Amino acid sequence: MPAQTAKKPEPVERQPSAAAGRFGDGGRYSEILAHAAKLFASGGFAGASMQDLASAVGITKASLYHFFKDKEEIHSSVVLIALERLSWLVDERVAARATATDRVDAFCRAHAEFLASDGDFYISAAMGYKSITDPEVKRKARALRTGYEQKLRDIIQAGIDAGEFRPLDTLLGARAIISCLNWMARWWKPGGPQSAEEIASAYAALIIRGFLPDK
Amino acid sequence: MPAQTAKKPEPVERQPSAAAGRFGDGGRYSEILAHAAKLFASGGFAGASMQDLASAVGITKASLYHFFKDKEEIHSSVVLIALERLSWLVDERVAARATATDRVDAFCRAHAEFLASDGDFYISAAMGYKSITDPEVKRKARALRTGYEQKLRDIIQAGIDAGEFRPLDTLLGARAIISCLNWMARWWKPGGPQSAEEIASAYAALIIRGFLPDK
Repeated sequence: MPAQTAKKPEPVERQPSAAAGRFGDGGRYSEILAHAAKLFASGGFAGASMQDLASAVGITKASLYHFFKDKEEIHSSVVLIALERLSWLVDERVAARATATDRVDAFCRAHAEFLASDGDFYISAAMGYKSITDPEVKRKARALRTGYEQKLRDIIQAGIDAGEFRPLDTLLGARAIISCLNWMARWWKPGGPQSAEEIASAYAALIIRGFLPDK
Repeated sequence: MPAQTAKKPEPVERQPSAAAGRFGDGGRYSEILAHAAKLFASGGFAGASMQDLASAVGITKASLYHFFKDKEEIHSSVVLIALERLSWLVDERVAARATATDRVDAFCRAHAEFLASDGDFYISAAMGYKSITDPEVKRKARALRTGYEQKLRDIIQAGIDAGEFRPLDTLLGARAIISCLNWMARWWKPGGPQSAEEIASAYAALIIRGFLPDK
């Protein structure tokens, strides 16, 4: 039941992700998902076969079907886990901050932290969203994405209500920020002069200037 | 020689694009590229076969090979044409404006105009960039993308030099704007309450606020 498993993972911890054992049970199931995320991130849903995945994990294709019904089920699990983990991480980081400016910064940093530490899952979700065919999985994925944007809109709205930000279109403001963050996945590579978190925080600072009241 | 043809298209005109006859010769060559862009935009490079394309155009597969060596050549032509047309359109629109603020706005509007009028080419280029294998085509596509970002950085720098904008990291500023514009291709659909140009202009206004000097 991957969709259910994906709904109740352990709390996000600030630690480097391992190729396996990341998602609670520490076993074969997590290992399969980690390898699947890697394959989906590099070749998309169409580019990864069950045989590729079985070979990557080092098990037979028949064993793979013991864990998952089909490739769709594995793919859905990867996408939902990615969207859910991103969401929890952002919640956790934002909760630790007080002002709207700081919360927007925390939101951006958490997003970048997830990209940097769980890039395969992140990219699988970003690329693979459109490949989902199961209506129930599609609905969950859409709700997670909408909810993610809504979190940021709520932070901006709270900033407006507190007089910290000028009255502004929260949808436009949230989309601008999320666009910057999402687009990072297309160009940012580890090992550059700036960490993903630093870049995300610089985007936050730039766009928040546009949120501030005049004078 | 599609790559050469792609280098010398006619000036961009403000007119709705037709499925065929858009790229100068008004004939079969343009028609093939328009259909190819449509196929690549919906299924990616891997999702479109030469047979699909021949059927869409209404010619035999053998006739298709009369125009293009292989699918790679067609794909490269679509991607390069898209990047070049976007670039020319932006140049034309920006040249008509005077201040840096107005030029950034024109840049954003032109980008959105291209997305709205030539969405298949736009999306083929955005999605298909990574599928290019020919090193020469890769180099050209990369140069076009880098040059595109540089145009916007130059506009921002001119604004800083003129005192219209505060001193700021032009790479960060340009990337923020281009991220918003690029991400629109993932969510914007024709027929919504706001046109693509209106949304792009609103992004420009929001982010330019972050470029303005204090007070």
